[in-house]
Amino acid sequence: MNAAIRTIKILKQPTSQAWIDQAIANIDTILLDHSHCEKKAAGNALRLICRYPSHEKLVRQLTALAREELEHFEMVNQILEERGIPLQPLPPPPYGETLISNVRGEEPQRCLDFLLVSALIEARSHERLGLLGQYCPQEKLAKFYRGLMASEARHYGMFWLLAVESFSREEVDRRLDELATVESEILSTLHPQPRVHS
Amino acid sequence: MNAAIRTIKILKQPTSQAWIDQAIANIDTILLDHSHCEKKAAGNALRLICRYPSHEKLVRQLTALAREELEHFEMVNQILEERGIPLQPLPPPPYGETLISNVRGEEPQRCLDFLLVSALIEARSHERLGLLGQYCPQEKLAKFYRGLMASEARHYGMFWLLAVESFSREEVDRRLDELATVESEILSTLHPQPRVHS
Repeated sequence: MNAAIRTIKILKQPTSQAWIDQAIANIDTILLDHSHCEKKAAGNALRLICRYPSHEKLVRQLTALAREELEHFEMVNQILEERGIPLQPLPPPPYGETLISNVRGEEPQRCLDFLLVSALIEARSHERLGLLGQYCPQEKLAKFYRGLMASEARHYGMFWLLAVESFSREEVDRRLDELATVESEILSTLHPQPRVHS
Repeated sequence: MNAAIRTIKILKQPTSQAWIDQAIANIDTILLDHSHCEKKAAGNALRLICRYPSHEKLVRQLTALAREELEHFEMVNQILEERGIPLQPLPPPPYGETLISNVRGEEPQRCLDFLLVSALIEARSHERLGLLGQYCPQEKLAKFYRGLMASEARHYGMFWLLAVESFSREEVDRRLDELATVESEILSTLHPQPRVHS
């Protein structure tokens, strides 16, 4: 319950029914894309660790996060294997790249933006995996998604906390508001290819 | 014992006494560099997973490897914290970059070279962590290094097996011979700054 309230706080707009319909009708593609998302989340955490190697708390927390994302990657890949879906590349939706293009080039703003963009992606993943857990008619899969939700909620909370510990609350709130607006705008038009972030 | 025999088989030259002396005299710097090495090893595994997303076995094995490297990264960082050594950047030795510059640009040779370069780096890490486990006068640290050796041996065996499963044994042997020669040449002159691969 608390997690759901926090989702609403960080995201500007809830996911549309159109996305839910698209995702449920193309659940195998969503699963494959979800595998890529977990891999990219681990890679993102590792890149931040490499970019800010002296930030002890960031390094410690994002290492734990990367390990957890890799564990989820293994879990999704196991489900893909059980369903006979081969691992393969999948063109990503514009979501991630568009968000990253809004990261400012100069430090320390760059660090703040990376943390907030990561928080938003995790928050949206949390919301959407929750929707799959709620609407997916295949109970085993629905249960799997509900099981992942708690982690995703922890993850976006972690990024947000790292931001407020290094920047003033006012600056975090203002920038989060701007980036959350961008995030919701990207998703306001449904991407034609079914993806976790279409 | 078996692991030691395999080290000798894959590496062209054993590590010099000069490196052992340099490392033992600068063990705190070696520890910090070791932390960076574990992080880079996880990043390398993740990059290969992203580069070859359809190679099921590679993806499965390198995901497990990346998780293990991150676990080692946490362990080394814990030791750094106990010793009061702050996390900080450290200019890398030319070792990794020079090896990677020998990776051919065209597939499938590129894949073979990445696997063999990774195998060589892991084999050298295995050898050198073993030397630290043998020569480090601080028993707690020596024990830690001996504890890591088994993983490093498994890792280079894994890369080598991935290579021989996708390429002819003759091609693997020939290319491994060339790259192992390059690897030993890089280390034939001791890098002035103490590093795991100086």
